[in-house]
Amino acid sequence: MQPKMSVEEIRSFLEMDFPQVHDGFSVDEVGPMRARVRLSPGHGELRPGGTVSGPTLFTLADLGVYVAALAMIGPKALTVTTNASIDFMRKPAPGLDLVAEVDLLKLGRVLIVGDVHMRSEGQEQVVARASLTYSIPPKD
Amino acid sequence: MQPKMSVEEIRSFLEMDFPQVHDGFSVDEVGPMRARVRLSPGHGELRPGGTVSGPTLFTLADLGVYVAALAMIGPKALTVTTNASIDFMRKPAPGLDLVAEVDLLKLGRVLIVGDVHMRSEGQEQVVARASLTYSIPPKD
Amino acid sequence: MQPKMSVEEIRSFLEMDFPQVHDGFSVDEVGPMRARVRLSPGHGELRPGGTVSGPTLFTLADLGVYVAALAMIGPKALTVTTNASIDFMRKPAPGLDLVAEVDLLKLGRVLIVGDVHMRSEGQEQVVARASLTYSIPPKD
Amino acid sequence: MQPKMSVEEIRSFLEMDFPQVHDGFSVDEVGPMRARVRLSPGHGELRPGGTVSGPTLFTLADLGVYVAALAMIGPKALTVTTNASIDFMRKPAPGLDLVAEVDLLKLGRVLIVGDVHMRSEGQEQVVARASLTYSIPPKD
Repeated sequence: MQPKMSVEEIRSFLEMDFPQVHDGFSVDEVGPMRARVRLSPGHGELRPGGTVSGPTLFTLADLGVYVAALAMIGPKALTVTTNASIDFMRKPAPGLDLVAEVDLLKLGRVLIVGDVHMRSEGQEQVVARASLTYSIPPKD
Repeated sequence: MQPKMSVEEIRSFLEMDFPQVHDGFSVDEVGPMRARVRLSPGHGELRPGGTVSGPTLFTLADLGVYVAALAMIGPKALTVTTNASIDFMRKPAPGLDLVAEVDLLKLGRVLIVGDVHMRSEGQEQVVARASLTYSIPPKD
Repeated sequence: MQPKMSVEEIRSFLEMDFPQVHDGFSVDEVGPMRARVRLSPGHGELRPGGTVSGPTLFTLADLGVYVAALAMIGPKALTVTTNASIDFMRKPAPGLDLVAEVDLLKLGRVLIVGDVHMRSEGQEQVVARASLTYSIPPKD
Repeated sequence: MQPKMSVEEIRSFLEMDFPQVHDGFSVDEVGPMRARVRLSPGHGELRPGGTVSGPTLFTLADLGVYVAALAMIGPKALTVTTNASIDFMRKPAPGLDLVAEVDLLKLGRVLIVGDVHMRSEGQEQVVARASLTYSIPPKD
């Protein structure tokens, strides 16, 4: 199944819907059941020494699954995060972008589940891993 | 076991160590293996309509467990979040503070586990629930 | 809101629906949005030395939330576990029952979320903590 | 980094240490920071209709991360599961083995984190996803 929205359409939609996207977050690409998003340092999100706070990594993962889901279901759908689990494994490399690879594992009528692996750009080791569930509210 | 730090000592420590504490977050009280922290609306953290973003609730939970742990182990300890799981259950009531009750379930030599229940002030229903694990780095 | 099923009705239902309930698991009581279930040792579930395996604790938590939900929504509903997170904190005391206290935090049309704290009977310290989400399949 | 134990060495070790391995669970292969384990149906683990219980999927994931970690650190290390999160996404295909692919994302001095994706053999869709953290107890 191909995405219903292009990266450009998603970017326009996010400017209204997901204001965090301005603060160094951006969308690289979307594909069938997947997306890649990134966070650039130097935007107040990275702590001294290159450390990224837990909530910032959470925001990146949340944005990533939202973007991957949006691409597949189109801009009209309202979705809310109902569950997230995240493992923080190591510090990111200082000065590099943080890149999140997102795979949608389920795109159901009611629940969407995505898997996220975050790495410093070009590095093999995973900085943090997250799984998020979005719920699609029932239509009235 | 009684806390090693008072609320005032924790507030002073957080002003340096946890800058988010300025943006509407504050510490109500600490006790043996527990703490209460809050987020006041009107600080750019609450979305229109009273909704609070997932990352903001995550920040509140993360701060809460950090404060409860800090109170018990004192200001010298360095700790990092290694794992978090969070369930988002309902929208907070518009205009009310979000209050997080934290219980430390484990305070080990290596791992600290805390349980967090977040509610709109004075409401019975839980807005979000989180569990966080902090790791205490081994001494050299 | 009061439960729709008594402990006796739940026990009869579980004998057919949840066969694990025979292997040392039992239902203590149900109440509004809550339940208490237990695991008795000496049933092959407890490892030598009193240790309980992770999957056994998971089964106890899963059963607990299922029982609490069943009591509230009645025996006709089909539900499936969609998400679980669990923290294992300490070994249970040898020879004692493991008791799980369950609180339903959400009982929605689509999702049910429960919180579980497991302790060796009569002990204060929490052996393991779990949160489970059950999904109620949409009616056709 | 290459594994320190072969599949045959792991099988012998598990026969003593992880008795569930007899009930239809088996180890396919181990590699650097990874493993593949499986559950064969017809062993009392699969429910009527091909459904696999949540605790059984949890056991498969737990075994998988344990095997992958054992291969890397060798048979002397004692480890315990400290945290697990699991998403159940769809029913497995009836009559097929359930295959779990395990990737270790972290192999630290204190914590080991593994990622598990479970599928019916030969199928693309993920039946369940799990992340587990094992703690390596400090040496005395």
